[in-house]
Amino acid sequence: MDNYNLDTNREERLGFPEVVYGATKSVDLLKSILGEYQSTGRNALATRVQVEKAESLRRHFPNAEYDVVSQSFVLRANKLEEMDARVGIVSAGSSDLHVVNEAYYTLNFLKIPAKRVNDVGVAGIHRLFDRLEDLKMLKVLIVVAGFEGALPSVMGGLLSQPIIAVPTSVGYGVAAEGIAALNAMLSSCANGITVMNIDNGYGAAIAAYRILMQIDT
Amino acid sequence: MDNYNLDTNREERLGFPEVVYGATKSVDLLKSILGEYQSTGRNALATRVQVEKAESLRRHFPNAEYDVVSQSFVLRANKLEEMDARVGIVSAGSSDLHVVNEAYYTLNFLKIPAKRVNDVGVAGIHRLFDRLEDLKMLKVLIVVAGFEGALPSVMGGLLSQPIIAVPTSVGYGVAAEGIAALNAMLSSCANGITVMNIDNGYGAAIAAYRILMQIDT
Amino acid sequence: MDNYNLDTNREERLGFPEVVYGATKSVDLLKSILGEYQSTGRNALATRVQVEKAESLRRHFPNAEYDVVSQSFVLRANKLEEMDARVGIVSAGSSDLHVVNEAYYTLNFLKIPAKRVNDVGVAGIHRLFDRLEDLKMLKVLIVVAGFEGALPSVMGGLLSQPIIAVPTSVGYGVAAEGIAALNAMLSSCANGITVMNIDNGYGAAIAAYRILMQIDT
Amino acid sequence: MDNYNLDTNREERLGFPEVVYGATKSVDLLKSILGEYQSTGRNALATRVQVEKAESLRRHFPNAEYDVVSQSFVLRANKLEEMDARVGIVSAGSSDLHVVNEAYYTLNFLKIPAKRVNDVGVAGIHRLFDRLEDLKMLKVLIVVAGFEGALPSVMGGLLSQPIIAVPTSVGYGVAAEGIAALNAMLSSCANGITVMNIDNGYGAAIAAYRILMQIDT
Amino acid sequence: MDNYNLDTNREERLGFPEVVYGATKSVDLLKSILGEYQSTGRNALATRVQVEKAESLRRHFPNAEYDVVSQSFVLRANKLEEMDARVGIVSAGSSDLHVVNEAYYTLNFLKIPAKRVNDVGVAGIHRLFDRLEDLKMLKVLIVVAGFEGALPSVMGGLLSQPIIAVPTSVGYGVAAEGIAALNAMLSSCANGITVMNIDNGYGAAIAAYRILMQIDT
Amino acid sequence: MDNYNLDTNREERLGFPEVVYGATKSVDLLKSILGEYQSTGRNALATRVQVEKAESLRRHFPNAEYDVVSQSFVLRANKLEEMDARVGIVSAGSSDLHVVNEAYYTLNFLKIPAKRVNDVGVAGIHRLFDRLEDLKMLKVLIVVAGFEGALPSVMGGLLSQPIIAVPTSVGYGVAAEGIAALNAMLSSCANGITVMNIDNGYGAAIAAYRILMQIDT
Amino acid sequence: MDNYNLDTNREERLGFPEVVYGATKSVDLLKSILGEYQSTGRNALATRVQVEKAESLRRHFPNAEYDVVSQSFVLRANKLEEMDARVGIVSAGSSDLHVVNEAYYTLNFLKIPAKRVNDVGVAGIHRLFDRLEDLKMLKVLIVVAGFEGALPSVMGGLLSQPIIAVPTSVGYGVAAEGIAALNAMLSSCANGITVMNIDNGYGAAIAAYRILMQIDT
Amino acid sequence: MDNYNLDTNREERLGFPEVVYGATKSVDLLKSILGEYQSTGRNALATRVQVEKAESLRRHFPNAEYDVVSQSFVLRANKLEEMDARVGIVSAGSSDLHVVNEAYYTLNFLKIPAKRVNDVGVAGIHRLFDRLEDLKMLKVLIVVAGFEGALPSVMGGLLSQPIIAVPTSVGYGVAAEGIAALNAMLSSCANGITVMNIDNGYGAAIAAYRILMQIDT
Repeated sequence: MDNYNLDTNREERLGFPEVVYGATKSVDLLKSILGEYQSTGRNALATRVQVEKAESLRRHFPNAEYDVVSQSFVLRANKLEEMDARVGIVSAGSSDLHVVNEAYYTLNFLKIPAKRVNDVGVAGIHRLFDRLEDLKMLKVLIVVAGFEGALPSVMGGLLSQPIIAVPTSVGYGVAAEGIAALNAMLSSCANGITVMNIDNGYGAAIAAYRILMQIDT
Repeated sequence: MDNYNLDTNREERLGFPEVVYGATKSVDLLKSILGEYQSTGRNALATRVQVEKAESLRRHFPNAEYDVVSQSFVLRANKLEEMDARVGIVSAGSSDLHVVNEAYYTLNFLKIPAKRVNDVGVAGIHRLFDRLEDLKMLKVLIVVAGFEGALPSVMGGLLSQPIIAVPTSVGYGVAAEGIAALNAMLSSCANGITVMNIDNGYGAAIAAYRILMQIDT
Repeated sequence: MDNYNLDTNREERLGFPEVVYGATKSVDLLKSILGEYQSTGRNALATRVQVEKAESLRRHFPNAEYDVVSQSFVLRANKLEEMDARVGIVSAGSSDLHVVNEAYYTLNFLKIPAKRVNDVGVAGIHRLFDRLEDLKMLKVLIVVAGFEGALPSVMGGLLSQPIIAVPTSVGYGVAAEGIAALNAMLSSCANGITVMNIDNGYGAAIAAYRILMQIDT
Repeated sequence: MDNYNLDTNREERLGFPEVVYGATKSVDLLKSILGEYQSTGRNALATRVQVEKAESLRRHFPNAEYDVVSQSFVLRANKLEEMDARVGIVSAGSSDLHVVNEAYYTLNFLKIPAKRVNDVGVAGIHRLFDRLEDLKMLKVLIVVAGFEGALPSVMGGLLSQPIIAVPTSVGYGVAAEGIAALNAMLSSCANGITVMNIDNGYGAAIAAYRILMQIDT
Repeated sequence: MDNYNLDTNREERLGFPEVVYGATKSVDLLKSILGEYQSTGRNALATRVQVEKAESLRRHFPNAEYDVVSQSFVLRANKLEEMDARVGIVSAGSSDLHVVNEAYYTLNFLKIPAKRVNDVGVAGIHRLFDRLEDLKMLKVLIVVAGFEGALPSVMGGLLSQPIIAVPTSVGYGVAAEGIAALNAMLSSCANGITVMNIDNGYGAAIAAYRILMQIDT
Repeated sequence: MDNYNLDTNREERLGFPEVVYGATKSVDLLKSILGEYQSTGRNALATRVQVEKAESLRRHFPNAEYDVVSQSFVLRANKLEEMDARVGIVSAGSSDLHVVNEAYYTLNFLKIPAKRVNDVGVAGIHRLFDRLEDLKMLKVLIVVAGFEGALPSVMGGLLSQPIIAVPTSVGYGVAAEGIAALNAMLSSCANGITVMNIDNGYGAAIAAYRILMQIDT
Repeated sequence: MDNYNLDTNREERLGFPEVVYGATKSVDLLKSILGEYQSTGRNALATRVQVEKAESLRRHFPNAEYDVVSQSFVLRANKLEEMDARVGIVSAGSSDLHVVNEAYYTLNFLKIPAKRVNDVGVAGIHRLFDRLEDLKMLKVLIVVAGFEGALPSVMGGLLSQPIIAVPTSVGYGVAAEGIAALNAMLSSCANGITVMNIDNGYGAAIAAYRILMQIDT
Repeated sequence: MDNYNLDTNREERLGFPEVVYGATKSVDLLKSILGEYQSTGRNALATRVQVEKAESLRRHFPNAEYDVVSQSFVLRANKLEEMDARVGIVSAGSSDLHVVNEAYYTLNFLKIPAKRVNDVGVAGIHRLFDRLEDLKMLKVLIVVAGFEGALPSVMGGLLSQPIIAVPTSVGYGVAAEGIAALNAMLSSCANGITVMNIDNGYGAAIAAYRILMQIDT
């Protein structure tokens, strides 16, 4: 029995390579999988790698980078300029940063420059209006919010680009698991907002990449 | 056995009289209860009286008024000027009008002038900004929204008055029962927003009245 | 008090005009709103107009078209060729057609030609493989499914375009309200699939349009 | 990228300053944010600061106060007399104290004297009747309860002031997350009770403050 | 195949006979089952018999009685004096009467006299205190409430008898299906309250009967 | 566009032909689909065909049979002897018959004789013990129950055959949608019970057929 | 401010003294409360006292007893003979023992002898039949079960005494929080079963005591 | 009182012996129970034995085997050849291995050879097609998947054997507890798929064994 079965031709088939979901894999399994990528000279990204596991992995892959906020583990990150950003990653609060960064590092892995605009939630909506002209320059917007999840709805009424909304598990009481924000985003009275699973910054980045591939062809 | 037991000293105790919840009462029971009020020369309000039941009741109480949108049945409505409004009732969409009107007719019954501002939801947020100066004049704001329920959060960041948020059962899919809007309002990142049960325009009006009683003493 | 408040500059702001949500509006309100559009020579679309209401409306707007499957009411539909299709609307079962058609008529209203591929669900997956080459020609894919909602996950592993998944309320037992399909789509192990609210064909069409606007600029 | 974006003009806009939500922020982020407040000579309040994080912070801000029950971290608390209390904070059980104190320290931060009346839940309702005359003296009542959440309903039938009900996550089984108490409060047959999110003592205090601002103008 | 299989020796085994659940049975099936009881000279009770079905049945069983409020269909009701009541059936509101009566007619079928005390809910709690001495005379209390379901908790702190709480599906929004009242009753801070399924007046009566059988032996 | 896309080679692929799910299809669509089957001389089964739709269909297919309890519409039913039964379909109550019959007619369509044992639920468990020896003769057991769904758990501890449990939407309050029975069956402490969706008698029959095909090879 | 407010006249009012809910109280608060009881020579019981807290408490109250399975902390337990048992506490599995013991120690505190019958769940129902004659001797039955919660339904069809069902949070998947067992018990097709909150062994004991008080008067 | 009550004649009654559920049992209780098995020379299996408990147990039973992935503790495992496999255990992702192995070790305990096919989920569906011919050789298929749980639906359309679907608690957001996968499997549009509780690999193995016993008689 083999415990895993890499989808090695995904890049040929879909235009982007497989990324490793680290949360439920053991350190040993992660070493084997990342080692396979490294041995063929490719970049690799593992998401949701818990801190202790990342420390073990870095001893094995000394040149890797690790973003502790989003728990992203990267073999050979790219150097990209934010001023060329094609994707905006906008967050409602500073507690949403783990999702922002997961999207950011995934786009980096795909060689897409992105710009992060943090803490512009609706409790002080003037902070969003201050950044509106900047945001109009971008091709795709990833909008990240916990609590009541209102930010994508407000942005959807002000901006015409594709909006990929990502609810976060930030809050307490009825908000604590992210369901309140998720349902608010799905129910948005603003038109044409698409939604990802709770905390799924990685998926939002891939969704943005699928759009960019169509723009570029 | 008596089937009902009016709380006749509520006005002395709390400052506002009992209101009749009509949805699950038979026409006969409503006739008895409203008849008791009428026989003592008092106003009366029955909420959630379905259309067919209201028609029967109007044959019995020919001077009553009935608002079909909110299903409010009123014995002797008051004449109040909107220009003296102390409470604002703001709605996100024109489909929320049944709740707006339930609050409006309850305030009318309590002799409180109120102003309705409809269809200013966040999908076109400029409509709200157009009305902001008007809204600053009011003592209490009732904010009614279905779908994602974002309007109270945005208003809570812009206005300093007490905000009583009322989710509505307007929408479809995950929004259809009003739970998405309810949870969004409870989870609001805006500060100090209070929340009522879904579609509870009546309760919002009483909550506003409790505040006005304190302002007036 | 005005009961409604049209967002007349939405087209200037966002690139697409307002569409009327008909489910909870009265015939009279729909006549007023659609009349406003007609009087300025514009096309108009009302979604979720129940059959009886549509019949009343057609007496008033004799040139309107009505799609009974999706309950879409259109003032002046466009004539578009399917062979120029830019968006694919793929469904798992023939019971999902109400959502397929809501997306189709919305795209038509926005002058986007679309191609419908029906009844290719995973219980007989060869039906999908038969259409794969056709689907690769399109810029955006809207994928509609009820029951277990597996179709977008399978397509996400085979096709590289943006995929907008729409769960439907088709099924019984735990599937009946569409929550099973919605959660399956949000949880997809395929990468970068975005999701709409249950039965929201209209929103999926607008989301596709947002992408096409970026491709076209 | 800036990780946070303080809403510095909130006091001018709304009449009360921003409060820091500490639960999901790192110690370093809290130090930066609180430091900004301190450097401009202002008071500051951080809510939901876990014990270990508070210990680190106190080494940095030696004059700060920390209430371990509610996890409130205060730079320069006010000295207020309870005998001038304008707000009553009433709790059903001694296990609800974390929420009582969060409301109390927030009101203190806003310079509002408040009175706490603990452990008067409906299992021994005579304890409430003993305090009824005292409670009639106050302008606003915050009522905190876990388990079945019945206390606000009983008080709503006995007292005429604004009542802000706060469910707590105290209990086990179906009560454990506070949803049972929340839904009971939202469904109250008593009139005009408003509700906050579970455990949201902070929000209740701000809601009371919004009312007091209207009373004082 | 036989479509049904009466539990004819239940009375010998448990001390009370089988009762027919009418809601999902056809008129024809009810006629067969009730006919079997009648042919052996026994009383019979069918619960939840919808009005139209009851009308058909009464043509077949002309001496039967039917309580339209609780939809109870009785072959040969007993004549019992309320002054000998051993069970109290207490309700919070007049909308709970369908459950009160289902319990009442079931106890009647079991030859237990019961007393109904209606509309004494916590929004006007003095109405309960007026009846407290009467209630102390009874052996078992069935307490019926919808909305927030607080009445059993208050009574549990005031009265020492067995309390069987029955939530009702009365209310709207989060209360509408009775879950809010059910969870409040299960979570009661009052001690030793037992709970039935929503609207299960029949089951409450049997539970009371099980207790009375132990008292009587 | 074709609205449907029959899976015509299912029988070759899986060993059993496609069955038509009738609940959400129009009469016209059902006529087309069933007509295709008829024109090739094959049997056909449509499940969940509502009564009014069945009446229209029978005018078109005069030799068809229709079971009103399970809403099964059959073109050319088979004649099978119950004494050769290989599958037992056991139900807890007579209200579960719609699911029993859906399984029965599906097995008939597949030419598998089945035996129905009705109304042997756990409230009178001796009724089950009376039939135990009969049940031991069968190859597969389909066990159908609503309310608390306990019957499959009890049978799983007494009988060694494959048990396919089917929860039904029979009951009220927390049982009304079948979720209580479903979760009880999934959680069974008896070993190796498999579970179908609520009311899915059709699926249970196919699952039994998959087992019989393995027994027969 | 006093943090707690003992209900010292509960015994006079209801016939049983207050019991302390330990789970959310600090060791210091528990010491104060238990000290008050001890200083007046009374017995005391604290439920849900976590192990570490119990160890601190035992250093303070060296004669106390602690049952680690149910986390019950008792000042001066009673000596009672099981052969005089009036209450049976029956459990489905050996993992339910924490609830069994909570009920047992509460009854002991109330001086009621009780008999525990463990591990007789429906997966091996003959184990229950072996004990049936013993169980018929008891006045009240407390029935404790996790997983599918079927045991009270089976017992309710076999035994005529009052049955107090207690669901436990034992199991995994859909059973893990006890909701599956709770809903199964509430939905029982057996008649007159009453239900407690999940894991509420304490409440079940008080409910049994309320019945015994009526039997004894 | 005995804390447990082994079902020692289960093998005679059902054809397979009792297995011990270890998650909620103490080490001491497990030692007693496993010791009873060992003392009579039988094999024994305890599932869900946490790592620390397993370490204690192995000191007591030095010849036992422990699979850390599935937490299965086995007294005397069998030696079986995979090439004789009668059951296939197929998983969607390498994170599902804990459930795969629980099924595998349970089948081993029952002396059934099984074959594991891992990581063939629908995001790269060609991996499944590569194994299709192998899978057609097996008598029963256990299909294990987390996230959206689509794999059993796809397999159900391609393979004719009995399919026992097991959802896993693998994923995050709406997938995290396994409910999304469970509901998708129950709602499958593929025919005749049966479903187990979340993570219930043990139950799936027993269900497969019940089928094999029928094939073998």
